[in-house]
Amino acid sequence: MITGKNYIGNQLVGSKRTFKTFNPQSNTENSSEFFEPSSDDINKAVALASEAFYTYKNTSGAQKNNFLNAIADEILALGDELITMYTQESGLPEGRAIGERGRTMGQLRLFANLVADGSWVEASIDTAQPEREPLPKADIRKMLVPTGPVVVFGASNFPLAFSTAGGDTASALASGCPVIVKSHPMHAGTGELVSSAIIKAAEKTGMPNGVFSNLNSSGIEVGVELVKHPSIKCVVFTGSFNGGKALFDIANNRPEPIPVFAEMGSINPVVLLPKAIANNLESLAENLAGSITLGAGQFCTNPGLILSIESDELKKLSQNIAELLEDMDASCMLHPNIKRTYTKNQSEVTSQDSISVLTNSSDNAEVNYVKPQLATVQGDVFLKNPTLHKEVFGPFSLIVQCKDGKELLEVVKCLEGQLTATLIAEENELSQYPELINHLLEKVGRLIHNGMPTGVEVCPSMQHGGPYPSTTDSRFTSVGTSAIKRFVRPLCYQSWPHNLLPEELKNENALGIFRLVNSEYSKDKI
Amino acid sequence: MITGKNYIGNQLVGSKRTFKTFNPQSNTENSSEFFEPSSDDINKAVALASEAFYTYKNTSGAQKNNFLNAIADEILALGDELITMYTQESGLPEGRAIGERGRTMGQLRLFANLVADGSWVEASIDTAQPEREPLPKADIRKMLVPTGPVVVFGASNFPLAFSTAGGDTASALASGCPVIVKSHPMHAGTGELVSSAIIKAAEKTGMPNGVFSNLNSSGIEVGVELVKHPSIKCVVFTGSFNGGKALFDIANNRPEPIPVFAEMGSINPVVLLPKAIANNLESLAENLAGSITLGAGQFCTNPGLILSIESDELKKLSQNIAELLEDMDASCMLHPNIKRTYTKNQSEVTSQDSISVLTNSSDNAEVNYVKPQLATVQGDVFLKNPTLHKEVFGPFSLIVQCKDGKELLEVVKCLEGQLTATLIAEENELSQYPELINHLLEKVGRLIHNGMPTGVEVCPSMQHGGPYPSTTDSRFTSVGTSAIKRFVRPLCYQSWPHNLLPEELKNENALGIFRLVNSEYSKDKI
Repeated sequence: MITGKNYIGNQLVGSKRTFKTFNPQSNTENSSEFFEPSSDDINKAVALASEAFYTYKNTSGAQKNNFLNAIADEILALGDELITMYTQESGLPEGRAIGERGRTMGQLRLFANLVADGSWVEASIDTAQPEREPLPKADIRKMLVPTGPVVVFGASNFPLAFSTAGGDTASALASGCPVIVKSHPMHAGTGELVSSAIIKAAEKTGMPNGVFSNLNSSGIEVGVELVKHPSIKCVVFTGSFNGGKALFDIANNRPEPIPVFAEMGSINPVVLLPKAIANNLESLAENLAGSITLGAGQFCTNPGLILSIESDELKKLSQNIAELLEDMDASCMLHPNIKRTYTKNQSEVTSQDSISVLTNSSDNAEVNYVKPQLATVQGDVFLKNPTLHKEVFGPFSLIVQCKDGKELLEVVKCLEGQLTATLIAEENELSQYPELINHLLEKVGRLIHNGMPTGVEVCPSMQHGGPYPSTTDSRFTSVGTSAIKRFVRPLCYQSWPHNLLPEELKNENALGIFRLVNSEYSKDKI
Repeated sequence: MITGKNYIGNQLVGSKRTFKTFNPQSNTENSSEFFEPSSDDINKAVALASEAFYTYKNTSGAQKNNFLNAIADEILALGDELITMYTQESGLPEGRAIGERGRTMGQLRLFANLVADGSWVEASIDTAQPEREPLPKADIRKMLVPTGPVVVFGASNFPLAFSTAGGDTASALASGCPVIVKSHPMHAGTGELVSSAIIKAAEKTGMPNGVFSNLNSSGIEVGVELVKHPSIKCVVFTGSFNGGKALFDIANNRPEPIPVFAEMGSINPVVLLPKAIANNLESLAENLAGSITLGAGQFCTNPGLILSIESDELKKLSQNIAELLEDMDASCMLHPNIKRTYTKNQSEVTSQDSISVLTNSSDNAEVNYVKPQLATVQGDVFLKNPTLHKEVFGPFSLIVQCKDGKELLEVVKCLEGQLTATLIAEENELSQYPELINHLLEKVGRLIHNGMPTGVEVCPSMQHGGPYPSTTDSRFTSVGTSAIKRFVRPLCYQSWPHNLLPEELKNENALGIFRLVNSEYSKDKI
C-alpha cells in the first residue's frame, strides 16, 4: 500500500505539497499522491542519520551482511506490487522490471558477501621496530573507515538498480554509512515500496533508526537542501550533466566541501576498424542496432557515436543498421519530459549542416513513443562542430566517416571524457593502431573489444566511471565491488593499545582477511 | 652553480622579472637572481609534459625504478652545495638539512621499490564465463593508470622532503605522471639544484624530455596559470589554508575540474587523560616541549592544542612545560614573513578574553628568531571562541582545561578536521573513554597513543591527511607509499586481446604481482 509519505528513519511522515507520478504508456497520471518533506523533516532525517552513524559505522561485517541480504529478501517479498508499480511509473516492460529486480538483489548480495569477507578495508600493518637507528619505529596500522551520512539521488533510467536500493545505496550501506535517498520524482511509488523493504530489513536485523531515510521530491529543492546540509558527507548522483554539475558546484562551495560522485552521461564511441566491418557486416549491424535501442536508448552506455574510415563497407553497414532500426517497433520513453528532451536534442544534431539522416523519420503513432534514428557525418565536419559531440539521451546514434586513419585519430583526440569506448577489430588489426588506442584510453573508464558498451557486468574488475564530463571523478566506479571505495577514507592507528584496535587490525586476524603486513600481502596472523 | 633560470623540460630558460631568496639567520638577501617564467615558458613546460605523458605513462616499473634511484643518487652527488644553499634559504641548521636530504632520498627509493614490485596497480581480473546463463560473462580486467601532468607546489617548511623532489614529486613520477614543480619562492636556489639532479637522472635513464620541469615564482601568478591550464590533470600543495583553498576553488571552477590535494595545516590536538599525567609528569613535559619546538614549531603535525581535565597535576605539568620552553634558545624561523604571521596569529590568540600566557614573553634578541610560547584557557571559553581553534604556525601551544570528561567530549566534538590526534593515557585508561575516541577519530587521519604527533613515519600504513580543513581530501595521504594513489584512476579492459593487455593484466603474471583474480588475491598465473 502506497502512503505517499517520506521515511524519516522508520517513521512515515508527509504534510507539504503533493505530486503524482506519470504512466508514459497510457499517458495518464498515476493515482497515488506523494508528499514532499518539509525542511524540518529533512533536518530530522539528517540528524537521525548522523546519530545512527556513530553506532552503524562500528557494525560488524557479519551484521551488515545480514542487513543487506535482508533488504534483498524484503524486496523480493514485495512481489507483484513492485513490478506493477515499476512498469506504471517507467513505461518499461515487465520483463525488464523483473530482470532489474534480480540485478538489484544481486548487487545487494554481492556487497553482503564483500563485507562478510572483510578484506575490502585494505588493512595495512607496519609493526614496530623499537631498536631501529637513529630513531625507533612505532607500530602503525591503517584501514578504511566510513565517512558519514550519504545522499543518494535515484536515477531515472534504472528505477531499481540505480535507485532507492540500487548499487549506490548498497555500497554506501556496506561501507558503514547511513543513506538518505532523494527519491526520483518519476518513481516515487517504486521508491516508497523499496524503502519499506529497507526499513523492514533494518528493523529485523537490529540496525539503528536513521540508517536509512527516503525523501520524495517533485523539484530540485529537497536535493539542494540535502547537499548543503553540514552533516552530509557525500553525494551520489546518476543523471544529466546539468544536474550532476549543479550538485558538484553546490558541494564544493559548502563551508566544508564534500565529494560528489556524479555519473553524467556519455556518448560511448564505438570505433569500427576496416577489416572487422568487411568480415562481420551483418552481425555487427544487428549488434549495433540492438545496443542503440536497448531500454529505448536510455542507458548511460548507449553507443551514441560510431567512428570509422569511409568505405563502401561502412556505407553498407550504415544502411543495414538504418534498415534494422526502421523495422523496429517504436518504444515508450520513461516520461513525456524525457521524450521532449530527446526530440529536441536529436533535432538539434540532425539539423546541423552536412548531416544526413539515414533512418526514415516517420511520425510516431503514440505520444510518448519514439522510433530509433541514425545519422551520419564526415569526420572534418564533426571535428569543427561541438554540437555533434553532445549526448542525445535516447535511441539515436551518429556515424562519423573519417577520410583516413589520421583523421580518425584527430576525432578520437577531440573527444570529451566517456564511460566507455569500444573497438571493433579483427585479430591483429588492433595492433596496427597503437597511437589511436594510446589516446583513446585517456578518454574512457572502460575499453571494450568486439562487444557492445551496453550491459555493465557487476564484478570486482568493472570500472563504470570515466574522465570528466562523463563523471565528476574518474578515480571511482559506481558499478562493481569497488563502488564501496566512494564512501571511505583511511584511518591510521599509531602505537594503539592492541585490545582497542578494530578486529581487522589485530595481530590475530580473527576475520581471516587479506592484509598488507610489513609490505607483504597475507592472510596470516602476526 | 645557480643560473636562476627555470627548467622547461631539460632547457634552462629565464627572461622575465627577477627576485632573490632571503637568509633569515643573517637577515640578508642571498646573492643569486632568479627569473620567473613567461606565459610562453609555462605553456611550453605544460606542452612538453603532455607530450612526455604519452610515452612516460607506458614506462615499465623497472625503468621508473632506475629513474627514481638515479634522482636520489644525483641529489647526493650535489654534495655540500645543496646543504649550504638549504641552510642559507631556510635558516634551518645543517643537521636538519642532512637529515631531510636522507629522508628525501629514502622516499625516492621507497617509491622506486614500490614500482619495481608493481603490485601497487591493484590489478583485478575476472575471467570470462562464456557458458553463463542467461548471458555469457565477458573477460574483464582493470588496473590503475596515471592521469596526466601534475603540478607540485613546493612547501615552505620542508625545502627538500616536501618540495622539488619530495614525496609528492616522487609519488607522481612513480605513478607515471610527468611533474611540473612550482618552486617555493623562499627556496628557489635549493629548488634549482634539486631540479638539476632530476634532469640529469632523467637524461641518464632515458626518460622523455618534459617528464619534469621546474618553474620559479615570487608571487601567485605562475601557480595560478599552471592550475588553470587545461592540460594539467592534478595539483598537489602543502601550505596555508588560504593558499590551498584558493587553488582548490580555481581547480573546481575550470571547464574541466581537476583534483587538488592540499594539505593545509592542523592544530593536532593532544588529549591528556588524568592518570597518565599523574604518572608521567616529567617525561610528558619534556616530550611536549620538544614536539612543540621541533623545527621552530614549523611542522604540520605540531601539537598546537593540548586538551585535558583540570587538576593540580595538569597545572603542574603546564608549569613544567612552560619552564622547559622558557629555558630553550630562541630559534630562527624560515622567513621574516613567517615570523610576522606567527607573531600576529599568536598575539591574536593570546589577546582573547580569559587566556593566560604561561611562558615569560621576553623580547627576542634576533630579528627572525622566536621563543616558544604556551598559553592556557578554560574549556567553556574555548568552546565559545572559534579564534582559539585557529592554527598558529610556529612554536606555540594552547592548553585547554576542561572541567570534566563531559566538557572534554564537547571540546572534541567541536574541533575541525585534523591531520592527527594524540591520546596520552595509561594502560586501561583509554577504554574508559569510548565515546571520546569514537568522536575523535571522525576528526583525524591518524590517531596516536602515548607518542608525539611530530615525526611522520614514511611507510605503507601511514595516513598523512585528515578531514577538511586539514586537507582538501581525507581519502588520500601525502606521506607513505599510498601517496601514489593520488595520481591514478582505474582503467578497465573488456574482452581485450591478450597480447595487447598491459603486462600486469596478462595471464602469465610475468611481473609476479599480487592480483585479485576471480575475487581471490594471488600472485599465481592464470
